[in-house]
Amino acid sequence: MTPLRNKDSRNLTMLTDLYQLTMMQAYGTNSGTVAHFDLFFRNNGQTNYAVAAGLNSVIDYINDLEFTETDLQYLRSTNLFSNDFLESLKSFRFTGDIRAVTEGTVIFPQEPILTVRAPIHEAQLIESAMLTLLNHQTLIATKASKISLTAAPASVFEYGLRRAQGADAGIYGARSAVIGGCIGTSNVLAAKMFGLDAVGTHSHSFVLSFDSELAAFREYARMYPNSCLLLVDSYDTLKSGLPNAIKVFDELRAGGHKPVGIRLDSGDLAYLSKVARKMLDDAGYKDALIFASGDIDENVILHLKTQGAKIDCYGVGTKLITSADQPALGGVYKLSAIEQGGKIYPKMKFSNSEEKMTNPGVKELYRLYSPDGFAIADLIALKGETFSKPLTITHPIERWKSMTLEDFTMKSLLVPIFENGRQVYTVPSINDIAANARAEMDKLWDEYKRIINPHIYKVDYSDGLYNLKQSLISNQGGKPFPDKGA
Amino acid sequence: MTPLRNKDSRNLTMLTDLYQLTMMQAYGTNSGTVAHFDLFFRNNGQTNYAVAAGLNSVIDYINDLEFTETDLQYLRSTNLFSNDFLESLKSFRFTGDIRAVTEGTVIFPQEPILTVRAPIHEAQLIESAMLTLLNHQTLIATKASKISLTAAPASVFEYGLRRAQGADAGIYGARSAVIGGCIGTSNVLAAKMFGLDAVGTHSHSFVLSFDSELAAFREYARMYPNSCLLLVDSYDTLKSGLPNAIKVFDELRAGGHKPVGIRLDSGDLAYLSKVARKMLDDAGYKDALIFASGDIDENVILHLKTQGAKIDCYGVGTKLITSADQPALGGVYKLSAIEQGGKIYPKMKFSNSEEKMTNPGVKELYRLYSPDGFAIADLIALKGETFSKPLTITHPIERWKSMTLEDFTMKSLLVPIFENGRQVYTVPSINDIAANARAEMDKLWDEYKRIINPHIYKVDYSDGLYNLKQSLISNQGGKPFPDKGA
Repeated sequence: MTPLRNKDSRNLTMLTDLYQLTMMQAYGTNSGTVAHFDLFFRNNGQTNYAVAAGLNSVIDYINDLEFTETDLQYLRSTNLFSNDFLESLKSFRFTGDIRAVTEGTVIFPQEPILTVRAPIHEAQLIESAMLTLLNHQTLIATKASKISLTAAPASVFEYGLRRAQGADAGIYGARSAVIGGCIGTSNVLAAKMFGLDAVGTHSHSFVLSFDSELAAFREYARMYPNSCLLLVDSYDTLKSGLPNAIKVFDELRAGGHKPVGIRLDSGDLAYLSKVARKMLDDAGYKDALIFASGDIDENVILHLKTQGAKIDCYGVGTKLITSADQPALGGVYKLSAIEQGGKIYPKMKFSNSEEKMTNPGVKELYRLYSPDGFAIADLIALKGETFSKPLTITHPIERWKSMTLEDFTMKSLLVPIFENGRQVYTVPSINDIAANARAEMDKLWDEYKRIINPHIYKVDYSDGLYNLKQSLISNQGGKPFPDKGA
Repeated sequence: MTPLRNKDSRNLTMLTDLYQLTMMQAYGTNSGTVAHFDLFFRNNGQTNYAVAAGLNSVIDYINDLEFTETDLQYLRSTNLFSNDFLESLKSFRFTGDIRAVTEGTVIFPQEPILTVRAPIHEAQLIESAMLTLLNHQTLIATKASKISLTAAPASVFEYGLRRAQGADAGIYGARSAVIGGCIGTSNVLAAKMFGLDAVGTHSHSFVLSFDSELAAFREYARMYPNSCLLLVDSYDTLKSGLPNAIKVFDELRAGGHKPVGIRLDSGDLAYLSKVARKMLDDAGYKDALIFASGDIDENVILHLKTQGAKIDCYGVGTKLITSADQPALGGVYKLSAIEQGGKIYPKMKFSNSEEKMTNPGVKELYRLYSPDGFAIADLIALKGETFSKPLTITHPIERWKSMTLEDFTMKSLLVPIFENGRQVYTVPSINDIAANARAEMDKLWDEYKRIINPHIYKVDYSDGLYNLKQSLISNQGGKPFPDKGA
């Protein structure tokens, strides 16, 4: 099904923090100063990796930037803004460059996953919304990835709409879940908008609304003879739900139809699934699928698998759609350089801890692959740096940790998305994004993907970046007010 | 400022789970069966109470229900729906009744906070979106309430947009935060849409983009002489940030302006705020406010207060806007009765645990107040039951726990919102909602509001509800397939 995109017709230009607008006015909308910002996340809880998502929304947001008459009316009412500034907002549009990793790319802490080069007031306005969109969608794609990798070869469906943090969290969460590895969603609007596979069966209230469970199952099977999936735990899973389901499956089979399977939504899923499998097999339904739902996440799945549960498909709700164990990614957007009069001045935020200092300069991000196709390490470098073989890459802080690569391939991960405000990248179909995400995930050793205590994937700095950072640190040594530039 | 409402122009009719649509078709859109549903939550983590929010969005959603041509085109493409059913959706609108507690009402587990009476296919469609909207907004209002009650008399601002789970989570989260007790937000769009107070200052990158911290502060003060709040931790809070801020405050004062204060965003907030207070006081700025931000929630605030931190205003981000320690409320929507041919058949979901069984019948929800104005208990009753003094109310399960009230007042909490599909309730202004929420909160003993181990507020059943539930349980005893009705 081709997606029938509901263009999000809301104007999100004002979806920003007030300080972005007060800073824009302080910079002026015609300052001539061009800023470079990097967007990255600092850590990702227990899991090291994340799966990038949300670029699709960022592109719509940037293209649609425009202050409406009521926006200006509101801003005027705050008494914070001059008439000149408000007038200049009438013709505001984004005129800069954006590069980003594509959706579905596996990413790691500290890596620039999106960079902006734009007049400083433009670069400032877009910080908040870009962070909102990328933080949220990357968070859910990552959680979906952890759940799907744990569940494999079982499939995972996204069922969380009713527990999502608002409509967008449901809609874009469903899309992100599919990027991360889910194979479908219960969310009809998301399925329509993005061409996802919509799945679903019936609820307990459907069963309760009939005179008996059997009557409810029969009616459902009559309506959906070729997609009949029955929820069997409304009364008693083993004593009534499964026998009734098998009775109705027999009737379907007699009519030439093939039932899909059953869904368990409560009780001990390990025990019930094993008994259900045997009952279905004994009745001749070896192909009937067993779906399980109810407060499931990657840890529950791991334990169910350990106990030999016979589950073919998981419907995962609350814990996926909210990323319950870590409900925010914590991405940040930091100034890396200022351009004035054609000259670039690298910038960095200082801190008592070298790890918390930001990385200065205009950057590239590379992934290095070994000849067998596996990813070896990522390299954060300065734009314009060149590399030759053999290549020695070095730990960001502990420089004695280095590795020399003789034979490798190198892929640049930051792709041009906007140039001079014009979109130069087309978002692939969701199927292509998800397929690409799976392919990239396969290039990463399992040790990096463990859901607890993963091996830490190397993200090294180039010599150029390392030397620039050190020179900025030592030039500023002891000076509370760093001068502009290095 | 009057809110300049951006009407949410998205069509959210398809924001539902696929099974709602397959069940609608199975019921038929002209079945004559009317269903009653109750929406409630089962528990709320460590805290017993919640603050209702989201009705505003539910009203918009219900009013805007309409299947578009592309919606029907999409549904047709799934091959699940008949032409007759799709044709009938063209004229679909909600024709039923909705009652709900108003926004800002303090609510407790098991209480029906929204009830629906509607043709069963209509009642089914709206389940998912109503749960999404009410779960999310009630969750955030509740978290804001916990944080604000802990911070008082200090004020709390909502700063979380960039970590919100999507645009809606930021927008409606900001509104919910104000219902729960925050006094403003950094989110400009939310402020514009709902008439909230927008607040903000500047970022570290603003300071970094100037030649020196002092130059950045001076420029900011020049632009905003009457709302000058300076972020003092870009380099060194005590050695540069505060001395520079005081220097600029002196310049402002010389020009006849009064500075607002400073913001601390890192470091030891207890220590820094105490030193900052002394430095500001010594310089003659006893009225200058100290704002603090950075990974704050109610527990951090409690510890800061215990250590004598001098903080006037908290900016709370991630942990509020995602309700990080409990990112979903878990509201559910359960069938309570079926009407056929004018007769009402109460319905309930059975379970091995009496606590998990749902409450049958069409209900009312009352709050009982003592003569001193404090809330004593809530009472879930059947519609049409009458009560007289003295009134004995009884624990839902342990019937020996009862209390007899001689002198009390009784307030009905479920207010008509839609009647026959027509909106009969007007949402008050956000200021009125927030003021009412504060007034209601004041009627609740502090013991019920503790953020850990709170005293459990009594939510009792009327005799009518208790007897109905027991009769349904005993009528179904041992029967796997309950007959319709009691």
